[in-house]
Amino acid sequence: MGLDTCPSLIPHLYLSRFSAPQAAFRFNQEIINATLDSCACYKIQIAHYEAMGTDGLSCYRDTIAYAHNKGALVIGDVKRGDIASTGDMYAHAHLGGEFAVDMITVNPYMGYDAISPYLPYIEDKEKSIFILIRTSNKSAEDFQDLNCRGEPLYLQVASAVANWGKSYMARCGYSAIGGVVGATKPDQLAEIRQRFKSLFLLVPGYGAQGAEGKDVALAFHNGNGAIVNASRSIIGAYRNHPNGEKNYAEYARKATIEMRKDIESWLSR
Amino acid sequence: MGLDTCPSLIPHLYLSRFSAPQAAFRFNQEIINATLDSCACYKIQIAHYEAMGTDGLSCYRDTIAYAHNKGALVIGDVKRGDIASTGDMYAHAHLGGEFAVDMITVNPYMGYDAISPYLPYIEDKEKSIFILIRTSNKSAEDFQDLNCRGEPLYLQVASAVANWGKSYMARCGYSAIGGVVGATKPDQLAEIRQRFKSLFLLVPGYGAQGAEGKDVALAFHNGNGAIVNASRSIIGAYRNHPNGEKNYAEYARKATIEMRKDIESWLSR
Repeated sequence: MGLDTCPSLIPHLYLSRFSAPQAAFRFNQEIINATLDSCACYKIQIAHYEAMGTDGLSCYRDTIAYAHNKGALVIGDVKRGDIASTGDMYAHAHLGGEFAVDMITVNPYMGYDAISPYLPYIEDKEKSIFILIRTSNKSAEDFQDLNCRGEPLYLQVASAVANWGKSYMARCGYSAIGGVVGATKPDQLAEIRQRFKSLFLLVPGYGAQGAEGKDVALAFHNGNGAIVNASRSIIGAYRNHPNGEKNYAEYARKATIEMRKDIESWLSR
Repeated sequence: MGLDTCPSLIPHLYLSRFSAPQAAFRFNQEIINATLDSCACYKIQIAHYEAMGTDGLSCYRDTIAYAHNKGALVIGDVKRGDIASTGDMYAHAHLGGEFAVDMITVNPYMGYDAISPYLPYIEDKEKSIFILIRTSNKSAEDFQDLNCRGEPLYLQVASAVANWGKSYMARCGYSAIGGVVGATKPDQLAEIRQRFKSLFLLVPGYGAQGAEGKDVALAFHNGNGAIVNASRSIIGAYRNHPNGEKNYAEYARKATIEMRKDIESWLSR
């Protein structure tokens, strides 16, 4: 579940009583309480908290701590990417320091130097990183689909990611260096799943971005090897119901269960 | 000047009396006071502040405010890149909200969707963005130098950046959409300067990363069109002097003046 908790998704009953970051934290707590047994982990999109300033980032930190206290895993969707001492600082911030989560997303544009700072944190395979490979947005094609030496750039990136990941194989058969591959281009997702057997995939695009169960199912191999994210369609599910606001957490729970059922039905075919 | 203010660069006289974020803020204040008339603007690398958690980000915000109160321009070196509502949030955070600066760095991997959220903020050309084109690190070659349709990826990115920038031309002849091009590969820098006349360049790599005056000079056209950054070699200049710690700000000032002289000497040849 993606906790992209921006003010426009927070029920008015909180916004009228609390500051936006406080309201976001209460919202996240209730959502986590209601979905602990129905979702695999929480992906927190840091941009929505950064936009609320330092108080927003306190909410980000506190939401991580709350989920961890409940025994849940957390993905920090931070898409950082920088090198040398700067990369070390991002790695410390998001895998070791105040904002430490279990998994983060990382941008590959600067190459291996921008990945290596994270590796000391994933050596014991208790944590992992997901490197952007083929994103789910329309203009991902601007550069990711460019033909590079006979195949699209995203396949070059996928090859490099799979290669870097060989030294970080976990016992489950997947590497602690995973990749982000959207489900909005099902053919590309299927191709990457086929070619890179040990690459664990974080798959955005389900729900609000238009991908369906049959699309995201292509990311799996024997029911494993991927995790699918939905954000707005889950935490904003209450908006599809008259007077849904009061029971927003329950609607989120129902939406996660429906999403699981949908995906599972395609995995078993 | 790059304010990559990590604890290892802060004099002990502060670290012994203050928390790391408080020490960093005092350090930044003194550096800014000493260099206001000798450097063009301050580039603050947010990773070093993120690594110190929420207090570190308060220091980031306060350093921006301090520089702005002194009339200085600030580049937020944030290298963010994300799409749709998430991109909007980053844009608000760093160009409109609590962390608002005058210019930011942006990552192009996700394509135009990850750039467009910033455009409303630069429409009046009072603010600008720098998109990563060819970075200064060793493994920039992993993807940026890949041959895509007959030329390296970074030239494809440069073409797109220049094209997007056409609608954001300022009166000086340069666009409010600029690019980051390192000086560690002088030939590439010269080629980009030559081909994209209206692209304003942010040039890292001078000093600690090994680029020299003659290299960064290639980024300029008639003495304009680029800004050169140095971080550790300036704010850490005091470490080259016995007992330099007490006069760290003065050493930083001397280093900026030397750097300017070095670059100017190559521009006038």
